[in-house]
Amino acid sequence: MIVIIALLTTPLNFTNKATGYVRDMSSETLFERRERLLGAGAPLFYREPVHIVRGEGAWLYDADGRRYLDMYNNVPCVGHAHPHVVEAMHHQAATLNVHSRYLHEGILDYAERLMGLHAEPLSSVVFTCTGTEASEVAMLMARAATGGRGIISTDASYHGNSAEVRKLSASRWPAEDPAFRAIAFPQTYRPLQEGVHGTALTELYLAEVEAAIDGFERDNVPFAGMFVCSILANEGLPDIPPGFMPRAAELVRKAGGLFIADEVQSGFCRTGRWWGYEVMGFVPDIVTMGKPMGNGLPLAAVAANKNLVDTFRREARYFNTFASSPLQAAVGMAVLDVIENEDLRSSVAEVGGYLKGALRGLEAVWEPIGDVRGHGLFIGLEWVSDRASKAPDREGAIDVVNRLKDKGFLISNAGAFGNVLKIRPPLVFNKEQAELFLTAFDETLHERYGRT
Amino acid sequence: MIVIIALLTTPLNFTNKATGYVRDMSSETLFERRERLLGAGAPLFYREPVHIVRGEGAWLYDADGRRYLDMYNNVPCVGHAHPHVVEAMHHQAATLNVHSRYLHEGILDYAERLMGLHAEPLSSVVFTCTGTEASEVAMLMARAATGGRGIISTDASYHGNSAEVRKLSASRWPAEDPAFRAIAFPQTYRPLQEGVHGTALTELYLAEVEAAIDGFERDNVPFAGMFVCSILANEGLPDIPPGFMPRAAELVRKAGGLFIADEVQSGFCRTGRWWGYEVMGFVPDIVTMGKPMGNGLPLAAVAANKNLVDTFRREARYFNTFASSPLQAAVGMAVLDVIENEDLRSSVAEVGGYLKGALRGLEAVWEPIGDVRGHGLFIGLEWVSDRASKAPDREGAIDVVNRLKDKGFLISNAGAFGNVLKIRPPLVFNKEQAELFLTAFDETLHERYGRT
Repeated sequence: MIVIIALLTTPLNFTNKATGYVRDMSSETLFERRERLLGAGAPLFYREPVHIVRGEGAWLYDADGRRYLDMYNNVPCVGHAHPHVVEAMHHQAATLNVHSRYLHEGILDYAERLMGLHAEPLSSVVFTCTGTEASEVAMLMARAATGGRGIISTDASYHGNSAEVRKLSASRWPAEDPAFRAIAFPQTYRPLQEGVHGTALTELYLAEVEAAIDGFERDNVPFAGMFVCSILANEGLPDIPPGFMPRAAELVRKAGGLFIADEVQSGFCRTGRWWGYEVMGFVPDIVTMGKPMGNGLPLAAVAANKNLVDTFRREARYFNTFASSPLQAAVGMAVLDVIENEDLRSSVAEVGGYLKGALRGLEAVWEPIGDVRGHGLFIGLEWVSDRASKAPDREGAIDVVNRLKDKGFLISNAGAFGNVLKIRPPLVFNKEQAELFLTAFDETLHERYGRT
Repeated sequence: MIVIIALLTTPLNFTNKATGYVRDMSSETLFERRERLLGAGAPLFYREPVHIVRGEGAWLYDADGRRYLDMYNNVPCVGHAHPHVVEAMHHQAATLNVHSRYLHEGILDYAERLMGLHAEPLSSVVFTCTGTEASEVAMLMARAATGGRGIISTDASYHGNSAEVRKLSASRWPAEDPAFRAIAFPQTYRPLQEGVHGTALTELYLAEVEAAIDGFERDNVPFAGMFVCSILANEGLPDIPPGFMPRAAELVRKAGGLFIADEVQSGFCRTGRWWGYEVMGFVPDIVTMGKPMGNGLPLAAVAANKNLVDTFRREARYFNTFASSPLQAAVGMAVLDVIENEDLRSSVAEVGGYLKGALRGLEAVWEPIGDVRGHGLFIGLEWVSDRASKAPDREGAIDVVNRLKDKGFLISNAGAFGNVLKIRPPLVFNKEQAELFLTAFDETLHERYGRT
């Protein structure tokens, strides 16, 4: 028998995950130990948190041997415990892992290969350990190169957790720093002005960018650039009005700024293309990369043209103890091997396309699915209590997330209102697994909402 | 034949390492590739950088099979490529490595064991990937708990490279933020007032702390605390006037602040004690840890009492993708295993004591050695051009560092003037290796300075 106890904790983690954790008694000790050792409210997923002990491919296994289909984790992009990556890590760790102030070929081979995957003129790279550190470097780089300080972000963005990077996340941590200005994030679902569509809507959002640039000028804050996720992942993967990204980049450059693309989530074939900026049809001045890069080893980076990186090196005198290491290089290289050898780019495009199509079919039938969006194996489902008003239904989204978990499927909720179902499996997720999910999702809809 | 070419680069990395790199033609391609891919002036050690390909214990091997005794690296604390750590990493990577929002026992077992090594009331921990991230968390924690902002550091400190953390490094990146105030770092070698010694000197430095607290009050900046490395490593490992640390902590607490000890360099038996704060006779409110924790895997942490960590969790809504992971836990645990199984704490105290004693012997004979300082296997030699004036001899220190490298011994230079020889080998460094070094060091002194 399972006894459910509602806990009086209020930990909302930064991606607006489910609150009000409920747990069964069998995990009491583990949960209490966690609260004691890591602090009360250390973020946890699901009302009844899962106790995962093993992973393989897109599958995760809990302590009771129950399996879950992982449809959330983008970090283990080539699959949990991929043998090629594990062996590369093992071999390098057994050979050498040391800081970057000695010469080492591994990191250069990796840098060369990584930059070969990017568009011209992106050619040089600064390695870091985390996406937050990459965001720090990118801002410093833009500021060093332009001599400016002012940076534009969107009002529902997240680029990391350091004091400076938090200032980019206007809705979560309102900044009092005049060097940060947030614009309404571009979207077609809840447009800035009701009834405006297509390129007219694009112009409305571009006017937001212009207003921010003008605002910096008015405040005597010299402009440094704009910092956005190429596909606006944390904003809830909105459909972006046509041509917004390349046009915004133009505006930013015309004003003397640099356009920084956060590819931490959208990079490494997540969208079915190598980079989110390819999907959006622009080339950024500075790119940040992270999460999937090392399949779980802390590895992140910032790429730009050589001039920008040279300027950064000169001005910032940057050194990062654990970064640009032989271990990072070996593991990063192995991840690229797998993506290429297993042709995950094509597979993501195919499986993602299939899944999105099937979900669009369900959208046509089920009222709560207000919108189905995304690219490749990164899909967002807008959960609404009313289709006409598009009223966000965060509670409904959280309930569906938890019901799916109970059925053995791990997804999450995200977006500006926390009402977007976030489906983002490892890149190795296949069509059979997509079908298992679609069956369980359909069941969940029937259970919660009855027959349509 | 080796052709030496002086390069016209001016990369001074943040620890004031040797400038004016010279290289032999055989590494031309590697060096040029590095400048192209990682940016001109990406920091490198030594006039002729070494090309390291393998490590074992305290030994490093270059591409030509030449071996170097590593007397610099504190990160691979239990030795390069230690088999126990390598196996733990391999096993965990092959099993599971995933983010921390699922329940997992590994990270709790590690947290429990780690906190068991700390003094009361330090009991709970926030894991991060890097020391910089730990510094960010520590500042946020102190600010969340006190409601203040003002933080005191020393004028020659280094606690990381993010925008906010840089503000603690007054001499490198002067902050215009009124929430940061730096005091002259406490030392006996070049005291704040000539001729003042002992506890009278302690009082002088404590008055600096009081003045900083008063300054915040005058500026209407509510006080949050003081942030120092327990042994002032980046300041050049000065002998600290007696009782300064515990007395400063008292002052800070009396003013409503928290005392943050940076144990990134001084922790994990580096000093022959588990923590630098034990050597200095105080217990901090918040502790940061990093570098040696994962023997090269990015792993860092912040510890405090549970109330402080709870407050941080509530206020900061902190999540770190790669931190608190099963991989970090397994590797961190294996490092603790080795430190305990090989009794490295005792060995550090013994070998460090022997080395320091022998260096004190040389100090008595050789004019350029102005002072020999440090704790355990962390020794600083003040290099001076004149003993009476104590004029720092940075060039001399750099030359000695490079001569030793040519003999196969890797050390570095650091300190407020870049004139302190920094000797900080892996903890497994043994007495025979110390003797090899002492012979080479004596030879170097003879070669450069002739007979005394």
